[in-house]
Order: sequence, then C-alpha cells, then structure tokens
Amino acid sequence: MEGLPSWRSGETKASILEYVDRVTSTDPEHVPPAARVAVFDNDGTLWCERPTYVQAYFILGRLQELAAESPELAERPVVRDLLADDLVSALGRGASEFAYALLHAHAGLTADEFAEEAAAWLDKTTHPRFGVPFTRLVYTPMLELLDLLRGNEFRVFVVTGGGVEFLRACSEDVYGIPPDDVIGSSVELDMERRDGRVVLVRRPTLLGSPNEGEPKPVNIQLHIGRRPIFAAGNSAGDCEMLEYATTGPSPGFALVVDHDDEHREYAYAGTSLTDPHAEPIARTAGRLGWTTASMRTDWTQVFGPEIDP
Amino acid sequence: MEGLPSWRSGETKASILEYVDRVTSTDPEHVPPAARVAVFDNDGTLWCERPTYVQAYFILGRLQELAAESPELAERPVVRDLLADDLVSALGRGASEFAYALLHAHAGLTADEFAEEAAAWLDKTTHPRFGVPFTRLVYTPMLELLDLLRGNEFRVFVVTGGGVEFLRACSEDVYGIPPDDVIGSSVELDMERRDGRVVLVRRPTLLGSPNEGEPKPVNIQLHIGRRPIFAAGNSAGDCEMLEYATTGPSPGFALVVDHDDEHREYAYAGTSLTDPHAEPIARTAGRLGWTTASMRTDWTQVFGPEIDP
Repeated sequence: MEGLPSWRSGETKASILEYVDRVTSTDPEHVPPAARVAVFDNDGTLWCERPTYVQAYFILGRLQELAAESPELAERPVVRDLLADDLVSALGRGASEFAYALLHAHAGLTADEFAEEAAAWLDKTTHPRFGVPFTRLVYTPMLELLDLLRGNEFRVFVVTGGGVEFLRACSEDVYGIPPDDVIGSSVELDMERRDGRVVLVRRPTLLGSPNEGEPKPVNIQLHIGRRPIFAAGNSAGDCEMLEYATTGPSPGFALVVDHDDEHREYAYAGTSLTDPHAEPIARTAGRLGWTTASMRTDWTQVFGPEIDP
Repeated sequence: MEGLPSWRSGETKASILEYVDRVTSTDPEHVPPAARVAVFDNDGTLWCERPTYVQAYFILGRLQELAAESPELAERPVVRDLLADDLVSALGRGASEFAYALLHAHAGLTADEFAEEAAAWLDKTTHPRFGVPFTRLVYTPMLELLDLLRGNEFRVFVVTGGGVEFLRACSEDVYGIPPDDVIGSSVELDMERRDGRVVLVRRPTLLGSPNEGEPKPVNIQLHIGRRPIFAAGNSAGDCEMLEYATTGPSPGFALVVDHDDEHREYAYAGTSLTDPHAEPIARTAGRLGWTTASMRTDWTQVFGPEIDP
C-alpha cells in the first residue's frame, strides 16, 4: 500500500513511508502492533486553529448568551473585553480572571448536556474566512496519515491542549477516533443525583494543568499506559510529546506541521500561546532532527478541492 | 450464540442473556455499538481479592526489599507493622502514615521500570492458598461474560480501585483488555530527562482520590467520555458506578458478584474497606433491582477444573 496521495513526492513523504515500513517489517527494528501507538496534537496539527482556536469561538458564543441573561457577568471586565473581541486586554486582566471567564462559560452543565451543546454548535457554526463548518477544516494529508497508520496496525490517539469533552463531541465523525481515544484538558466533575439519575456536573475548575508541554507525556501515560512511537504537533507545547515518542526503546518518529501557506491556510510560527519564551518548534525540530511537513510544498491539497482556492 | 457455558441455567444467566439480546436486537431498546460500553471492577469481580488484594502482596514484597536496605524505613512504625503482617495496627497509625508506606514502595521508579517490576512479580508469585500465580485466579464465568459482550460489539473496560499501572502490566494477557482500557487509581508522575531520554517518574503522591465510590463514574467520564450501559462490581465502592450505568437514557444492566462460596473461593460481604458505614452492595442490589450472581449457585466452575476443588 503506497498511501499519502495528497503528499508531494519528496523527502518528507519518503521519510514517513520509510519509517512505517521499517517498524512494521520483519527486520530488527520491527515493533509489535501492541506497541504501535501514535499521538496527534489537534489544533493546528489536524485542523485549522486560526484566526483562533475553534473552542474559543464556542466559549465566546456561550458567554454572549450568558451575559445577555446576567448583567453581573456582562459587566465583569474580563468578560467585557472578550465580548468586545479584545483578547489582549482580556489576557492583561491576569491568568486567573481569564480562566474564570473561560471556565464559567459551561460550568454547571452535566457532561451529557455539554456534549449536546458542543455537537449542536459544531453543526451550525462556520469559519469566518472559509465559510464552512469548522469540522470541514481538517487537513486532508493528515487524515491520510491517520489512515496509513491505522492500516499498519497503529492505534491512533488525539492529544489536544483543548478541552477533551469539546473534541470528543466530533472526533469520531471527523477523524474516526472514538471519544476514549481523545486526551485533553479536563475540568473537575461532581457526581450528583438529579431526578433519581446519576449525572456528572462540570465545575469551573481545571483538573490539574492544561494539557500542554510536560503534561502531554504525563497524561499520555496516565491515559494510554504506553509510550508512543509516532507523534505529530505544530507548536512549542507539543515538543515534550514529540521528544517522549522519539527517546524510547523503539525507533520513534516526530512530525512537525509548518504553517507556511498564507494562500491556502495561514502562515505563522509554532510558538506557544502561554509561554512567550518557548523555543519555536521549527527550531526544536532542526536541533533534534525531526521531520517537518511544509504545508506549502509538501501538501498538494490542504482542505480538499471544495475549499482550497 | 448462546454463551456463558459456566453459568448454571436460571434467573441470573437468563437475565444477562436477555439484556444483551434486547439492546443488540432491532427493537425500540436497541443501543448502537458506539454506546455499548461495559465496565468491570477488578478485585473480587474479575479476580480473587482474598486473603487480601493482589497489589498489597506486591507492595509488601517491595517494602521488604527496601527495608533491608534502609534501616530508617524499616524502623518506621507503620512499615514495621506491615512487615509483621499486622494490618490492623498499620491502619491504626492513621491514613496518611498508611498511605506513606504504600506510596513510597514504588516512588522514584520510572513508569517503564514499574511496569517491568510488576510484570516480573506477577510471573513469579503464587497465591498462599491456591499455590498458582495470582493471574490464574480469574473467574472463568466472568471471562465468558467479557467474551459475550465483546462478541456483541461492546467495548469492555476495567475500572479498578487499585493502581492502574499494576493491572495494566497483565490486563492484556489475563483479560484481553489493552492498557488504555484500564482505569484505576494513579500516582502523580514527573517528566524528567535521564541520559537524554524523556522518562516519567512516580511520585509518592496519589493523583486525586482513590478510584472508589463517586470517583468511579467521574473517572469513567474523564477517561471514556461515555456513560456505560453495563457495569459489574462486588463491593460498596462499586455502587455509584453501577447506579451510573443503570440511570442513563439507554437501558442499563448492573451485576453484583456475591462471594458466598467458601469451598471454592471465599465467603464475605461486599462492604467497603475504607468506609465501614457503607451499605453492603447486596443490600443496595436488592433495593435498586440489580442482578446478583451467586458464586455458589450460579457458577458451575470458579477458576476452572485445574484449580477448583
């Protein structure tokens, strides 16, 4: 099976195919199927994260609804900034104020209610530039890569910095990845009984740290219990995960998606939103010998013929 | 497919088979395969937990080794009690002292080292009464139930109160359940670099609460992201999980394993080790209409002909 039809022939495509061939063949570098674990960052690695994260639009929409009902919330400075699209001022209010607004948007909902809200929102909301649902803005070459790996008996997981329950609302439809194979940032849940039924209620509190940087390998171990051998990412917050996959006992592979295609998508550096001093991932990739996929030169299509210009 | 050959014909077996038939047939109570999630407690539900938990023997063995090297540890009263097999005195030292001893036994090991230690120990250690490895003391009728569910497109998860990494060391071999489908109690992990490799180091600190009682439904949601429709347990700490599975929008099934067979296994009530005031699960089962499997009358064999008397 050749695979990767939307990847232009060249070094990047060849090195992916060669790696998969190497660990699935019978030679000394063979890795048994049970150890073929692949992990993918989501925002900017599997789907478009610009102008901002998909989930940020979702949270903002909910804050608008809540603010319309609660003047107290509407007048809170950080919420006022967010509703005025002034992210810089909102961040300037401090991390805890910013987190307050984000985490209160869906607090009090049960896990089931949140999943329904997220699914309904994903169905009806479109991207400001491309005019299609956000879930259509997944990278065709990366979907082919997921298929290639699954076709070679890899287990594929998404490891997102975003909220785990948000992505689970569409991961099966969009990536063919079931909810239990999505790892992400989580909020605390309270078990309650409502009308005789056990429900799990979202608290306005993050469970541990956001799933970025060092927490990515840690949460991979807590959730999967095995070290991945293949990892893909696009920002500084993915570096530890890629390093984890490539420094285990089996041969590993790290892939960095480089956003260098302003025409078909966006052009920006893979830095960190939360840590301005973090090394851009392109530099880490060069230093550690990781493979970089240039969106512009390695991919013959980005979103497919119906969306690509 | 009939299934459950080691289950004696009767009400219990009939109600399990009828339920599986009901949710997998095409009638109004049909549940789509993606929602067929089944969860099983481990100790006392899938394998033998007497005279005490398998993992307790593992921890004790390690404490013996450590105490031989460190007089300071050996002379700590809680450790002295544990090494003298005096569990009552050890518990009397207080929860934090008790936890100190348990959590320090394997602190400082990397996740990989712990997995190797656990696998090696499980290979070489035998049960004091039955004289076979602990991993042979799994209930044949329950293995048949796992197979029945998987054969009907259920996804099966183990949700143990014990340490998740300990059970993962054997879950694939013993139950055919891969490490990522095991949910349990976890310790905190630190990401470190050793000899240029990323490793995850076990801290002597529990991550959140032990996975018993209300944390079971919460951790199921965090890990799986779907409400189970089938749940099995044997102690008070499993009740919330069984209630969660049976109060969702789809028809649910709760199974309680009743240890009433002193001859072939043990006879004891399904109370809680940590909460002496908890209602025994047999009483909860009666109150809420759950199905109880009597080890003595519902099972034609417990561990199979090589072990059963």
